Amino acid sequence: MLPIIRAEILTIGDEILFGQITDTNTQWIGSQLTDIGIRPVRKTSVGDNKADILDAFAAASQRVDVIIVTGGLGPTRDDITKHTFCEYFGTELEINQEALELITAFFAKRGRAMTELNIQQAALPKNCTYIPNLWGTAPGMWFEKDNVVYVSLPGVPYEMKSLMEFEILPRLKAKFVSNIIQHKSVRTIGIGESFLAETIASWEDALPAHIKLAYLPHFGQVKLRLTGTGTDQNQLDAELAEQVALLMPYIEEWVFGYDNDELETVIGSLLVQHHATVGTAESCTGGFVANQITNVPGASQYFEGSVVSYSNEVKMNVLGVSPQTLEAFGAVSEQTAREMAEGARKVLNTTFAISTTGIAGPDGGTAEKPVGTVWIACATPGETFTQLLTLRNNRKINIELTSSYALNLLRKTILKTNLAVKG
Amino acid sequence: MLPIIRAEILTIGDEILFGQITDTNTQWIGSQLTDIGIRPVRKTSVGDNKADILDAFAAASQRVDVIIVTGGLGPTRDDITKHTFCEYFGTELEINQEALELITAFFAKRGRAMTELNIQQAALPKNCTYIPNLWGTAPGMWFEKDNVVYVSLPGVPYEMKSLMEFEILPRLKAKFVSNIIQHKSVRTIGIGESFLAETIASWEDALPAHIKLAYLPHFGQVKLRLTGTGTDQNQLDAELAEQVALLMPYIEEWVFGYDNDELETVIGSLLVQHHATVGTAESCTGGFVANQITNVPGASQYFEGSVVSYSNEVKMNVLGVSPQTLEAFGAVSEQTAREMAEGARKVLNTTFAISTTGIAGPDGGTAEKPVGTVWIACATPGETFTQLLTLRNNRKINIELTSSYALNLLRKTILKTNLAVKG
Repeated sequence: MLPIIRAEILTIGDEILFGQITDTNTQWIGSQLTDIGIRPVRKTSVGDNKADILDAFAAASQRVDVIIVTGGLGPTRDDITKHTFCEYFGTELEINQEALELITAFFAKRGRAMTELNIQQAALPKNCTYIPNLWGTAPGMWFEKDNVVYVSLPGVPYEMKSLMEFEILPRLKAKFVSNIIQHKSVRTIGIGESFLAETIASWEDALPAHIKLAYLPHFGQVKLRLTGTGTDQNQLDAELAEQVALLMPYIEEWVFGYDNDELETVIGSLLVQHHATVGTAESCTGGFVANQITNVPGASQYFEGSVVSYSNEVKMNVLGVSPQTLEAFGAVSEQTAREMAEGARKVLNTTFAISTTGIAGPDGGTAEKPVGTVWIACATPGETFTQLLTLRNNRKINIELTSSYALNLLRKTILKTNLAVKG
Repeated sequence: MLPIIRAEILTIGDEILFGQITDTNTQWIGSQLTDIGIRPVRKTSVGDNKADILDAFAAASQRVDVIIVTGGLGPTRDDITKHTFCEYFGTELEINQEALELITAFFAKRGRAMTELNIQQAALPKNCTYIPNLWGTAPGMWFEKDNVVYVSLPGVPYEMKSLMEFEILPRLKAKFVSNIIQHKSVRTIGIGESFLAETIASWEDALPAHIKLAYLPHFGQVKLRLTGTGTDQNQLDAELAEQVALLMPYIEEWVFGYDNDELETVIGSLLVQHHATVGTAESCTGGFVANQITNVPGASQYFEGSVVSYSNEVKMNVLGVSPQTLEAFGAVSEQTAREMAEGARKVLNTTFAISTTGIAGPDGGTAEKPVGTVWIACATPGETFTQLLTLRNNRKINIELTSSYALNLLRKTILKTNLAVKG
């Protein structure tokens, strides 16, 4: 094992401090650095102010090996970050010909005129290593001084991520990281974080020191991420696979996938594999389940459509739920959920249909059926399966949780339904 | 005008540095401080590490008047923030009786057993002002030393926001702010930020120095936020109203609301006011429009339901789009959008229905109809109105933009449709 390489992430811009934009960059950078074995120890945000930036550079250089700086490179306030670097390193700007050619080509390709401001984007501090930006007009920069690396990137998320992925992370790995860092994640749904931790405690306690476990919870799901550190790729892969094999018997019933699998992509693959189709009948989720399914490119292969039946009239007239059922059991009931799913399967002409009906809140709850009471169902060519959810949170969270559980009910139903598999 | 009060926001927790959770707290705190006239000048995130926290306290106390600290107060690692404060101020923890009573009541109300760890949550540094947390178990804390205020809050967003809103912001205002800060926002849709800036340039140039303008763009919308600073509330209100009145002639056609209005809440009010109802027929948006409408509590008053018709079969069988139309013009066409909206209006039995059909991407585009080609329509008791959108971005952004434009088409259609107004 090598010494720990420490990093600081520095963002520049008043709009972040004032809360006018959401900063998604630093979370992403933090996870990417962690993934290659560099440890983020601090994040700092300062405004568009030279003194504050200089102060942040100096302080960071005392505590870390790598400083990743984003923002302050746009054409309108081009000077802040670059001029500050010049002052910090005691150098000056000069036009970088390679950068100028790339910027010129960028504008030519889009048929847009170049202004003097754009030309100035090719002016870089003399001591920097130029990092070409193929995704925008502000070049990346790499500096080294007194064993500290300074990286400067534009704040536009797409440009920043592309530069990190193709240029900066490979350079950082080459310079600092000789250990191999390998991840393997197991994705679960329907088991709470603390209960999960208790369930797998004996397995977790027996993990070797070079394999770390993280619990990453999100809307009824917990992602268990194993991070192995070593020097031999094959050995590490084998060790991670072995740990997952040891883990599975404890949690098999809650596992829906691995690594970057999502419920909606897992379902998509299963449906394609079984050449089956699905539709939804949604009351309390108001179209959210359909939206989740159709967020996957290519969903039209297996998704036919949905009926969002917010009113009882639509439940009866479009889905064919019987007035007697609504009268006797109410809209939020196992019987209504069942008839909604079965009705959707018919009217949308699909192999499967899932339904949701419940009280999302904040109003509409009763003593018998409080806010968070939700019935979901999944209709198949044979049986229809139902499930009661007892949620507690606010409207938006109830809708997202219901969607996750409904997709999971569909997943489990596909797995136990006897369908032909595409040859 | 008074001197500027400067603030630093400090978050504590490895999970933020490593990118395992999304930090939404600091953006919210930044905007709240800005709103009451306190200027955030730095944000800092450090890990669960006493030396780093002490260093951050000391550095922040040299540059700002207010330090807002979140995180590190959970029961499992209770000690980090509180013990660090004790060390920093040279004091020690003692059980705060008022806090203990509140925590005991919190557990009693939920019928949960209290552990020693929970009791220790009532132990606070001797020199702090206790801030009761009615929303969770970790108390807030307020310290003052050498003219610097230190505020410590739990990291759970709901608890942090409640404590800020009801306890901390009023205390900060009372202590620091004697200027009145007043906001007035105008919400626009369908006009780009740069074109908007050119359109209102002469008005913006004439703004008095104590009224500032911010452009806050988000999914086809731009919020124009005026922030006035002064000492007389009535005068400030009158000045902001006057500026909005001067602004409106430039941008009236793009304005859909003010302040916290959203398209879906504005539409909800209009529909209630006209005792009218709405439904949707969605292809490329896959239920997203319905989901937007039903995110508003009480939407069941005016929202009947939707048909998500992803396949041509559902367009024909449920919405009654004619096979000839699909054959002659294709699913992505003005004619299909029109028939979808008219079909939805009939099958869902609503006053209005909006429809979307387009190519969200990344695949499915052709030379004639590239990715981003979308038709939307709004059917009424009389005419049906249609609109072509030419979008460019990725799938998710195309879906969100289409939804915004469809809701805006509905809004404009309601306004020009001659309906009875509820008396």
